Amino acid sequence: MAKGASLSGFPEWLPSQRVVEQRVIDTLRRVFELNGYIGIETRAVEQGASLLKKGETSKEIYLLSRLQDLGQEKDVPVENRLGLHFDLTVPLSRYVVENSGQLVFPFKRWQIQKVWRGERPQEGRFREFVQADVDVVGNGDLPDHYEVEVPLVMLSALEELRAFGLPKPTVHANNRKLSEGFYRGIGLTDIEGVLREIDKLDKVGADEVADLLVSECGADREQARACLDLAELTARNGDQLRERFEDLADRVGIDKGSDSYALAMEGLGTLAMIIDEADRIRPGAVIADLKIARGLDYYTGSVYETFLEGAESLGSVCSGGRYDNLASQGKKTYPGVGLSIGLSRLLSYLLAHGAQASRVSPASVMVAVWNEDDRPASNHIAQDLRARGIAADVAPTAAKIGKQIRYADHLGIPYVWFPAQEDGEEGDQVKNIITGDQEPADLLSWTPDSVYARQTVEFKA
Amino acid sequence: MAKGASLSGFPEWLPSQRVVEQRVIDTLRRVFELNGYIGIETRAVEQGASLLKKGETSKEIYLLSRLQDLGQEKDVPVENRLGLHFDLTVPLSRYVVENSGQLVFPFKRWQIQKVWRGERPQEGRFREFVQADVDVVGNGDLPDHYEVEVPLVMLSALEELRAFGLPKPTVHANNRKLSEGFYRGIGLTDIEGVLREIDKLDKVGADEVADLLVSECGADREQARACLDLAELTARNGDQLRERFEDLADRVGIDKGSDSYALAMEGLGTLAMIIDEADRIRPGAVIADLKIARGLDYYTGSVYETFLEGAESLGSVCSGGRYDNLASQGKKTYPGVGLSIGLSRLLSYLLAHGAQASRVSPASVMVAVWNEDDRPASNHIAQDLRARGIAADVAPTAAKIGKQIRYADHLGIPYVWFPAQEDGEEGDQVKNIITGDQEPADLLSWTPDSVYARQTVEFKA
Repeated sequence: MAKGASLSGFPEWLPSQRVVEQRVIDTLRRVFELNGYIGIETRAVEQGASLLKKGETSKEIYLLSRLQDLGQEKDVPVENRLGLHFDLTVPLSRYVVENSGQLVFPFKRWQIQKVWRGERPQEGRFREFVQADVDVVGNGDLPDHYEVEVPLVMLSALEELRAFGLPKPTVHANNRKLSEGFYRGIGLTDIEGVLREIDKLDKVGADEVADLLVSECGADREQARACLDLAELTARNGDQLRERFEDLADRVGIDKGSDSYALAMEGLGTLAMIIDEADRIRPGAVIADLKIARGLDYYTGSVYETFLEGAESLGSVCSGGRYDNLASQGKKTYPGVGLSIGLSRLLSYLLAHGAQASRVSPASVMVAVWNEDDRPASNHIAQDLRARGIAADVAPTAAKIGKQIRYADHLGIPYVWFPAQEDGEEGDQVKNIITGDQEPADLLSWTPDSVYARQTVEFKA
Repeated sequence: MAKGASLSGFPEWLPSQRVVEQRVIDTLRRVFELNGYIGIETRAVEQGASLLKKGETSKEIYLLSRLQDLGQEKDVPVENRLGLHFDLTVPLSRYVVENSGQLVFPFKRWQIQKVWRGERPQEGRFREFVQADVDVVGNGDLPDHYEVEVPLVMLSALEELRAFGLPKPTVHANNRKLSEGFYRGIGLTDIEGVLREIDKLDKVGADEVADLLVSECGADREQARACLDLAELTARNGDQLRERFEDLADRVGIDKGSDSYALAMEGLGTLAMIIDEADRIRPGAVIADLKIARGLDYYTGSVYETFLEGAESLGSVCSGGRYDNLASQGKKTYPGVGLSIGLSRLLSYLLAHGAQASRVSPASVMVAVWNEDDRPASNHIAQDLRARGIAADVAPTAAKIGKQIRYADHLGIPYVWFPAQEDGEEGDQVKNIITGDQEPADLLSWTPDSVYARQTVEFKA
């Protein structure tokens, strides 16, 4: 006996909503594979030692206990326990190291799976949700052209979802080296701290971030102001980015002979390359936005967030970056770059804004049953239709025909097939219950009109 | 930094193996949808109270703890904690009750998801694995023709997997009412106990089961013998089943006027109907086999197990049954019937017996890069191919052409595209690196030979 009690933070979709989710997943997979990315699936479980390495979210891990071990698990250090993965990047890194001898590098992979985060229930955030990731991981080195390719693949995928009502996506890119070089250039040293505070800009606003930079990161008012000025810098092409950054660097007095400045210039070069290259393929779809910080401490170069036009309050729907030090084994390192779509949140948006399944059932046709003794004849018809690739259901009972039609109607099945009756003069007939048309039908040649042939997802604004 | 250390019981596949798994999942989904089944996905997490209801496997639950709550969880009763689902039937029951107002009954659903069981590590069994389920759930009642339909849908699905090397499947069916009526008819009362011991027949053999029936279930030697005789009964059609059962009932002296006998006859009627109906559609694919017991206590009627010809030692690869009391709310009940494929175990078998991907990469073609400055031209070609549905990759570096070809070769990509060079006389060329053929190619019309167009799964015995 199951009890009806939905769990906060663990979303579940009704069948018609699941159709939309399934189509979104199918679409992403198709785009990823068109681009030559290889699908993998990793186990849901990682060792505590792996999960605990990744900064802030480490507090949101779900640990596992076997029911039989209850009460004993407190003796096991968290590092040696098992927990559910909270993203797909940490598992990818482990997978790459474990299987490095059997992978071809650069390893381009896509992965769509559930992840779990033990958020506080009252926050109203998902604790179980689906992520869709693409990453490219190199062996030893990784050419920086992948820092353009990966966001462009994600943009292709998101563009496909516009048919389901997704607004226009724009990738906002920054580079950690640029930020770090700038912060060091103005005399700050707690780089991770500054990035963490800057990451809060959209949530708490500039004044509070300035206060936090002073109270938490050892900045004075002038340094805090300079950090905010950097965060306000955006650019649509490399030349604009260079010019605006140089102006700011001059204004805050960064020494152009310093290592800090050189580091900033290295990051700036990559960022300028990214927006210029992306602009050739998707004009305006990738911009430089120097407030993008990303809270996670494993990024070492490019960082990305993606916003939807008119839905900026949703926050970033697709984020990521380059990480040079996440995976290593002995002297070998596996630098990577990747982005991740928060699919469940995106789906919530699509469902709330008019994406809907054309029908609940995958079946195009339901075969009626005149009486239970005739069920084998109806089953036979359904089997023949399926053999020709036409999805078919059979009426659940030999109820009055009006009731059978209502069953099909409730499921959105467009056609009802009436088998020939032994005592009747007519052969098989098919009724389109949406248009009301009814016609004789031949089992070997009948096909549904193309508009009714497949379950699809429509967008009605 | 990830450390290489695979976890016993948590299988992970290499990319080429994952291609096989993905194709198996795609195939099952296609068959399920062709039959009008509706896909759902339930959360991975259930409340302890739901998980603990289901007999034996309740000991194998993984419970969750938030990292922040460590040390406090011992104060929370297990019923109020969260755990990972160990099958897809308990979640379905809960889902149906929770959403009953918004579902169309009978609700025919498919579901392919991971499940987790906290088995002891040393047993070498999977602790995380994929199940593929189909169930039909009624509201109040459920016609028994679904007890034929559901195993036939599973057989259709398994038959499709024969292309990947799966041996011929046969469903072995029994009925709990038949067993219970018989056991009561010979004077036994611990029905669950007897079923649990009979379920061990394949593992421990008849002699030990007889001893267990005596020591654990209050049977005398004669009753134990009768139970084993029943378990030895098989039949290929209804008449044979009736005849053999009547003989046995006479031999062990069951009173044909008793309620027990009537109960056995009710179960026998359903079982006879199932094998006769199934025989019309797939001759010989469903047989009556009265040793099938199923350890889980929620089955109330039909029970099924599926064995593969020549791979009987693998055990049942697809099991299930009818459950009339799993889901209820107040006076409402939701009887169901379903079967579940243990997909990960099936996949291990296929991989070990010759199923393999035609190539690792989904890409049909890799576009070469003459030098890094020309990368945009190569990207452009790849984009145009993708726009025509041809999966394309681009060489990772402008290395020597031999090295670029080796990259494509390692990934199994059959074609390499050579962009026209500015200073050359030739236009674009495409080389099939499997056959060695190289030809001029037009970007707007070239298509891969059909045999190389898609990543497929082949079976090489």
